[in-house]
Amino acid sequence: DFLHALEHDCKPAFGSSKEEFEKYIANGIINWGDPVQRVLEDGDLLISQTKSSGTTPLVTVLLEGPPGSGKTSLAAQIAKNSDFPFIKICTPENMIGFTEPAKCQAIKKIFDDAYKSPLSCVIVDDIERLLDYVPIGPRFSNLVLQALLVLLKKPPPPGRKLLVIGTTSRKDVLQEMDMAAIFSTIVHVSSISLSEHLMSVLENVEAFGKNELDTLRKKTNGKRLWIGIKKLLVLIEMSRQIDDSHRIPKFLSILEEEGGLEMT
Amino acid sequence: DFLHALEHDCKPAFGSSKEEFEKYIANGIINWGDPVQRVLEDGDLLISQTKSSGTTPLVTVLLEGPPGSGKTSLAAQIAKNSDFPFIKICTPENMIGFTEPAKCQAIKKIFDDAYKSPLSCVIVDDIERLLDYVPIGPRFSNLVLQALLVLLKKPPPPGRKLLVIGTTSRKDVLQEMDMAAIFSTIVHVSSISLSEHLMSVLENVEAFGKNELDTLRKKTNGKRLWIGIKKLLVLIEMSRQIDDSHRIPKFLSILEEEGGLEMT
Amino acid sequence: DFLHALEHDCKPAFGSSKEEFEKYIANGIINWGDPVQRVLEDGDLLISQTKSSGTTPLVTVLLEGPPGSGKTSLAAQIAKNSDFPFIKICTPENMIGFTEPAKCQAIKKIFDDAYKSPLSCVIVDDIERLLDYVPIGPRFSNLVLQALLVLLKKPPPPGRKLLVIGTTSRKDVLQEMDMAAIFSTIVHVSSISLSEHLMSVLENVEAFGKNELDTLRKKTNGKRLWIGIKKLLVLIEMSRQIDDSHRIPKFLSILEEEGGLEMT
Amino acid sequence: DFLHALEHDCKPAFGSSKEEFEKYIANGIINWGDPVQRVLEDGDLLISQTKSSGTTPLVTVLLEGPPGSGKTSLAAQIAKNSDFPFIKICTPENMIGFTEPAKCQAIKKIFDDAYKSPLSCVIVDDIERLLDYVPIGPRFSNLVLQALLVLLKKPPPPGRKLLVIGTTSRKDVLQEMDMAAIFSTIVHVSSISLSEHLMSVLENVEAFGKNELDTLRKKTNGKRLWIGIKKLLVLIEMSRQIDDSHRIPKFLSILEEEGGLEMT
Amino acid sequence: DFLHALEHDCKPAFGSSKEEFEKYIANGIINWGDPVQRVLEDGDLLISQTKSSGTTPLVTVLLEGPPGSGKTSLAAQIAKNSDFPFIKICTPENMIGFTEPAKCQAIKKIFDDAYKSPLSCVIVDDIERLLDYVPIGPRFSNLVLQALLVLLKKPPPPGRKLLVIGTTSRKDVLQEMDMAAIFSTIVHVSSISLSEHLMSVLENVEAFGKNELDTLRKKTNGKRLWIGIKKLLVLIEMSRQIDDSHRIPKFLSILEEEGGLEMT
Amino acid sequence: DFLHALEHDCKPAFGSSKEEFEKYIANGIINWGDPVQRVLEDGDLLISQTKSSGTTPLVTVLLEGPPGSGKTSLAAQIAKNSDFPFIKICTPENMIGFTEPAKCQAIKKIFDDAYKSPLSCVIVDDIERLLDYVPIGPRFSNLVLQALLVLLKKPPPPGRKLLVIGTTSRKDVLQEMDMAAIFSTIVHVSSISLSEHLMSVLENVEAFGKNELDTLRKKTNGKRLWIGIKKLLVLIEMSRQIDDSHRIPKFLSILEEEGGLEMT
Ligand SMILES: Nc1ncnc2c1ncn2[C@@H]1O[C@H](COP(=O)(O)OP(=O)(O)OP(=O)(O)O)[C@@H](O)[C@H]1O
Ligand SMILES: Nc1ncnc2c1ncn2[C@@H]1O[C@H](COP(=O)(O)OP(=O)(O)OP(=O)(O)O)[C@@H](O)[C@H]1O
Ligand SMILES: Nc1ncnc2c1ncn2[C@@H]1O[C@H](COP(=O)(O)OP(=O)(O)OP(=O)(O)O)[C@@H](O)[C@H]1O
Ligand SMILES: Nc1ncnc2c1ncn2[C@@H]1O[C@H](COP(=O)(O)OP(=O)(O)OP(=O)(O)O)[C@@H](O)[C@H]1O
Ligand SMILES: Nc1ncnc2c1ncn2[C@@H]1O[C@H](COP(=O)(O)OP(=O)(O)OP(=O)(O)O)[C@@H](O)[C@H]1O
Ligand SMILES: Nc1ncnc2c1ncn2[C@@H]1O[C@H](COP(=O)(O)OP(=O)(O)OP(=O)(O)O)[C@@H](O)[C@H]1O
Ligand SMILES: [Mg+2]
Ligand SMILES: [Mg+2]
Ligand SMILES: [Mg+2]
Ligand SMILES: [Mg+2]
Ligand SMILES: [Mg+2]
Ligand SMILES: [Mg+2]
Repeated sequence: DFLHALEHDCKPAFGSSKEEFEKYIANGIINWGDPVQRVLEDGDLLISQTKSSGTTPLVTVLLEGPPGSGKTSLAAQIAKNSDFPFIKICTPENMIGFTEPAKCQAIKKIFDDAYKSPLSCVIVDDIERLLDYVPIGPRFSNLVLQALLVLLKKPPPPGRKLLVIGTTSRKDVLQEMDMAAIFSTIVHVSSISLSEHLMSVLENVEAFGKNELDTLRKKTNGKRLWIGIKKLLVLIEMSRQIDDSHRIPKFLSILEEEGGLEMT
Repeated sequence: DFLHALEHDCKPAFGSSKEEFEKYIANGIINWGDPVQRVLEDGDLLISQTKSSGTTPLVTVLLEGPPGSGKTSLAAQIAKNSDFPFIKICTPENMIGFTEPAKCQAIKKIFDDAYKSPLSCVIVDDIERLLDYVPIGPRFSNLVLQALLVLLKKPPPPGRKLLVIGTTSRKDVLQEMDMAAIFSTIVHVSSISLSEHLMSVLENVEAFGKNELDTLRKKTNGKRLWIGIKKLLVLIEMSRQIDDSHRIPKFLSILEEEGGLEMT
Repeated sequence: DFLHALEHDCKPAFGSSKEEFEKYIANGIINWGDPVQRVLEDGDLLISQTKSSGTTPLVTVLLEGPPGSGKTSLAAQIAKNSDFPFIKICTPENMIGFTEPAKCQAIKKIFDDAYKSPLSCVIVDDIERLLDYVPIGPRFSNLVLQALLVLLKKPPPPGRKLLVIGTTSRKDVLQEMDMAAIFSTIVHVSSISLSEHLMSVLENVEAFGKNELDTLRKKTNGKRLWIGIKKLLVLIEMSRQIDDSHRIPKFLSILEEEGGLEMT
Repeated sequence: DFLHALEHDCKPAFGSSKEEFEKYIANGIINWGDPVQRVLEDGDLLISQTKSSGTTPLVTVLLEGPPGSGKTSLAAQIAKNSDFPFIKICTPENMIGFTEPAKCQAIKKIFDDAYKSPLSCVIVDDIERLLDYVPIGPRFSNLVLQALLVLLKKPPPPGRKLLVIGTTSRKDVLQEMDMAAIFSTIVHVSSISLSEHLMSVLENVEAFGKNELDTLRKKTNGKRLWIGIKKLLVLIEMSRQIDDSHRIPKFLSILEEEGGLEMT
Repeated sequence: DFLHALEHDCKPAFGSSKEEFEKYIANGIINWGDPVQRVLEDGDLLISQTKSSGTTPLVTVLLEGPPGSGKTSLAAQIAKNSDFPFIKICTPENMIGFTEPAKCQAIKKIFDDAYKSPLSCVIVDDIERLLDYVPIGPRFSNLVLQALLVLLKKPPPPGRKLLVIGTTSRKDVLQEMDMAAIFSTIVHVSSISLSEHLMSVLENVEAFGKNELDTLRKKTNGKRLWIGIKKLLVLIEMSRQIDDSHRIPKFLSILEEEGGLEMT
Repeated sequence: DFLHALEHDCKPAFGSSKEEFEKYIANGIINWGDPVQRVLEDGDLLISQTKSSGTTPLVTVLLEGPPGSGKTSLAAQIAKNSDFPFIKICTPENMIGFTEPAKCQAIKKIFDDAYKSPLSCVIVDDIERLLDYVPIGPRFSNLVLQALLVLLKKPPPPGRKLLVIGTTSRKDVLQEMDMAAIFSTIVHVSSISLSEHLMSVLENVEAFGKNELDTLRKKTNGKRLWIGIKKLLVLIEMSRQIDDSHRIPKFLSILEEEGGLEMT
């Protein structure tokens, strides 16, 4: 019957995507603090609105935050949490070197596939990259932009429901393009800026011994820092290559340079 | 005979459109106040001018107002009210990823079809999107713009009458492009800015209990707010997901953020 | 023989055009005052120069005036008055969505056809539209511009005579493009700015009763206004839809808004 | 033999051009004063340099002057005077609607043909038009510009000699493009600015009676004016259509408007 | 088996590249001082991080420094040192005259090949040249830029590890393009600015006799200079052509002109 | 064998070029003073460096100087002096109307041919013209620019040596494009600015009698002038057409106008 056909139609798409989704949260979601918790809760609320609502069959949310703050992983996690029969990520990684029309078609295809499922979730990842945006000029693909502006407003066919999760590091640019205002709601993804959040990550990844952790806690306590979870995981990995005696000072000095830690 | 042939020719077009038209007023037209009433009356006047006039076989009107104020739905409602044998919507939703020439052809096709009916109504929806307009640059499709500039001035063939309803959120841009001045008349579509208009919507949608409504009326009474009907319906839907105790404060706080409600 | 062949060649072109010409003066030419008279007289002079001159086989005139002032209709009337064996209008209405080269070819074709007749008149209507001109940028088709710049200077073959009538609402732009200076002469088409001219039109169209006319004469007497004949005819038509009691105040209020009437 | 072959090759080109050349001096060269004389003498000098020189087989001259000052006609006259076996005009009139590459090829073809004749003269007419130049932007065909920049420097093959005559109304633009400096020499073509020069033309064309001429001489004597020969011939023709009594005042008033005559 | 197949697949790529790699360090790496040493050590650290890390299978480093400072050679040396089964250089030298899409495909191909090897190193050489960057405008290939922006973030497939070494003389431009921040880390390559570093090179290349070296040491001691190793090697070669008596003064005077040596 | 094959491969290229080279020094190299001498000597030095060097198989030099100063002829002379088995000129004269990719291919072809010979010299003539450079905009072919930027840095294959001689009148532009800095060295070609240099040319060409020369020497002695050898040869040729009595004053007056001679 109809629903059966639909599900049959969706499974392969879902199947191939599931694998992809793991990739985007390769290092898991470390629950390092409130900001992470809130994003996931907002995700839950939007999932339930999409499922139950009659008048708003299209729900759209923009996850925005600095580079490397974990937007893609969080979007993937929310999509997984939805348990919708169709989930799919629309990512520039699959469109390298595409012409503008090819990009448009690829994006449109994903939405058209989503329209076939009763309940769907589509991630539109790294929107500035999908738009081929560069600040010099600025230049970007207006063809792709216009396609997104329409797709983000166009409701799915009768009886279908769709949750769209966009991600971007350039909320300012999306606002200039009249795109930010189209989303039903906007959710902020934060960098790590408090010592306790940093420690929470460090404890989680088990890269340092207890004494080392204590030293780090003392050294960073009450200090301002500013680093995305993605870069932080790289720094931790780098410091693993360094011999025990130099590891802590080196880690702190890199954190100072790259992560804006104020050591004075 | 001739008229029979014409109607035969138009029916499929009409038929397929009718369905589309329902889509654009999925949540109906809530008559929340005078501004809504006036737009519909102006629509009636223009319908009767188109039907009866000898010297002006082409009547064009621009519905302009902020994003989400209900322009598309009102245009669809006026078109439905006309009861003209041919009504059709020309919308960017059907032209995603189209090249500029393809867009032009699609638009021209709709007008050419309209010219075949003795009485036609064409909606040119979301003109800035049809033009692929983006404020950065600004960039837009001059090919489509020029086609519209000509189509909005070109009278239908002898004996045919045509009402064109354009919609836009960027009247300023259309003025810069010398397009606004071409319309026979311009009609403003308003956001909701008065408490009584807000209450009128809330009563209509039956999302809140009587007590809740009373609270909301007191809290918003005499306050300035600024929200389109489209976003308001989303907010109402969101607040439905929230448990009874938090619903009213949450609804008011979102209205403050998104809808410019002044609570002080 | 030769001349016979020529005329044979021209007739279909002429025939198909004649029909077109009626279209452009669908509401006739109302002789509402001196400014209209003078344009038509200038037309007569240019017709006779084209016919009789030996040294200037190419005569070109630019009719320029505000939007809706009646330029196209007056150009069509002059062309009809010429009684030349070949008359043709080159109008953007027939070139919707054309590529730039296609537009060029279509324009060139009209001139090439004209060159085959001993006496020809070509209207180049709405030049800014033929050029795909838009003030933002500004943008326009340089290919079409260059073609016109050459065609407006190139004399017809020996023994042939050609009158070219251009129309534009953007004389300023044509001057910037070094095009205005190429025309042999420039003729201004005026908006209606005097009460007596307004009354002359109103009497002519028979939309108001004698009393109504008297009221309007009194109300507008000595006032400055500024409205093109085209928009004025639309306003008159609109006011016909309104019931008798409200007609005069409504008409005046629209005239104030749209037509710059100073009521103070 | 070789020379025979060459001449055989050139004749058709020459033949077809000769006809063209008459066209460009349809109203003859009226020797209205010293400025005309000097241009023709400079032409003679350059012809003899081209013929006799060993070290400069390529001679290039730019005729520059205001619109309608007679540049094209004078260039054509010089080319005719040369009596070279190959003379050819490269004019935008033959390239209407050409793409940039097609224009390049057409220009290159003319030079390649010229290289086949022992003595050639090529007119490059209306260079700003060949370049599709428009002051807005400015825009122009860089492909054509670059082709001309090279062709104006490239010597003909051994044993061949070539005189190139360019014409332009925009010497300023050609200087900005580094093109003016490439010409071997630059010759100025003047508008008519003295009463005696004006009278010399009027006497020549026999449009006015003796008394009329006397009146005009008195009225213009010692006054500054500024009009090209081309527009002057049009004005004379226009005034022929006017009845005797109004002819002189009308002629003077047009001369004031269009020709900058100072009547105070 | 799998690994065998992989290696079989990689060998030709590796083989053909090895040859290429020699080319980029044709004059060897002269260890003229600390700055050289540090770059090579950083390279070693990154190699070991790539090999051993679990959470960061993609490591990216940008070698940036003035023109001719030895970036390409050092990148090639690091790649050689890695001893990874797949090493490849992506260089503009192999893409002369490529269209933008062809360039994109060539770059993508190299990464796709790299993804097939368990351990790979890809050099992205002279990034501003790959981008067709020119400061006038500025102009660059946005298609290539966007491809690189994605490739530098996209992790290799599960189980594969990839080290990317980029080189550039325009770190400032890459920062404006939001590319610099994507690299895991940035390493500076220095020009030679101290006398002892200069002497270290001169001794190494054996172009001067002992006395000459002594003279040069005295003359440059304590002076500031600023020259890349690449240009320095050219200067040394030039001075070899000069006879013994003039060699030293000539060498110093060129060093002053080209290399910013302060002789006062 | 290998070398034989190479030479066999090169001969036709060389042969066809030799003829071309004569063309570029049609009027010989007049040794009018030190500046000429020095350019030729620098050429000799670079030829010997190319031949003998081990570490710098690619030597590149930019001849830069004002228009008509003799750059192309001097480059051709140096190439001839080299006696390398492969010499070739890459000139815009052979690329008129070429598309950008065609131009790139033509340039690349010349270098690829050069790479096949053990010793090659390539002239890259009139670089701003190869780049389709025009100061308005400015506009230029970035495709060609990027190809040259790579070719001027890319060493020939092992065992081959290559001398590249570029010429330009716009060193400033090449510097803005980061191209000037890529050349191994830059050599200035001078205009004639001293009376003795002028006289040296005049004596050489035998256009004036002894008395005339004496007069000219007196008139120009100690005066500043500024004229390229190319324009000077044209002026001399022009003055030959003038009768004896006017020749000297005419020659001096043209020299004043065109050549910046200060006669006060
Ligand atoms: N709480 C968390 N939130 C998000 N990501 C986390 C969290 N904890 C760990 N991670 C890991 O951090 C990395 C976040 O990278 P991700 O690509 O999601 O960042 P991003 O903000 O999308 O980066 P970019 O701005 O480059 O697109 C992932 O490897 C993810 O597994
Ligand atoms: N009085 C009303 N006027 C218009 N729309 C109404 C009204 N009452 C309820 N609606 C509902 O509100 C929504 C209005 O959305 P619509 O798309 O028409 O807005 P819009 O102004 O065209 O938005 P956009 O600026 O995004 O194009 C529709 O779902 C419609 O059914
Ligand atoms: N005296 C008149 N002059 C011109 N048009 C008149 C006159 N009297 C009546 N009309 C009518 O007025 C209308 C003029 O419209 P027309 O298209 O010629 O104006 P236009 O100036 O070309 O407009 P646009 O600027 O939009 O091109 C026509 O319907 C014509 O029949
Ligand atoms: N002394 C003269 N010099 C030039 N043209 C003359 C002269 N006397 C009469 N004429 C006539 O004047 C006209 C000059 O027109 P021409 O096209 O040569 O001008 P132009 O400067 O090339 O114009 P444009 O700037 O539009 O190209 C021709 O018809 C020519 O026959
Ligand atoms: N310590 C060193 N570091 C780098 N290169 C060296 C060193 N010693 C000698 N060399 C030689 O110097 C030259 C450096 O040239 P290379 O092309 O690597 O410079 P680059 O910075 O990449 O130049 P460009 O900015 O033009 O791309 C090579 O020939 C290399 O063999
Ligand atoms: N000393 C000299 N140096 C260079 N050219 C000379 C010299 N003496 C005579 N000539 C002649 O002068 C002319 C120089 O022209 P050439 O084309 O080389 O100048 P150019 O600087 O390349 O000009 P352009 O800037 O237009 O490219 C040639 O005809 C050459 O034979
Ligand atoms: Mg991301
Ligand atoms: Mg809408
Ligand atoms: Mg008109
Ligand atoms: Mg001309
Ligand atoms: Mg390099
Ligand atoms: Mg040259």
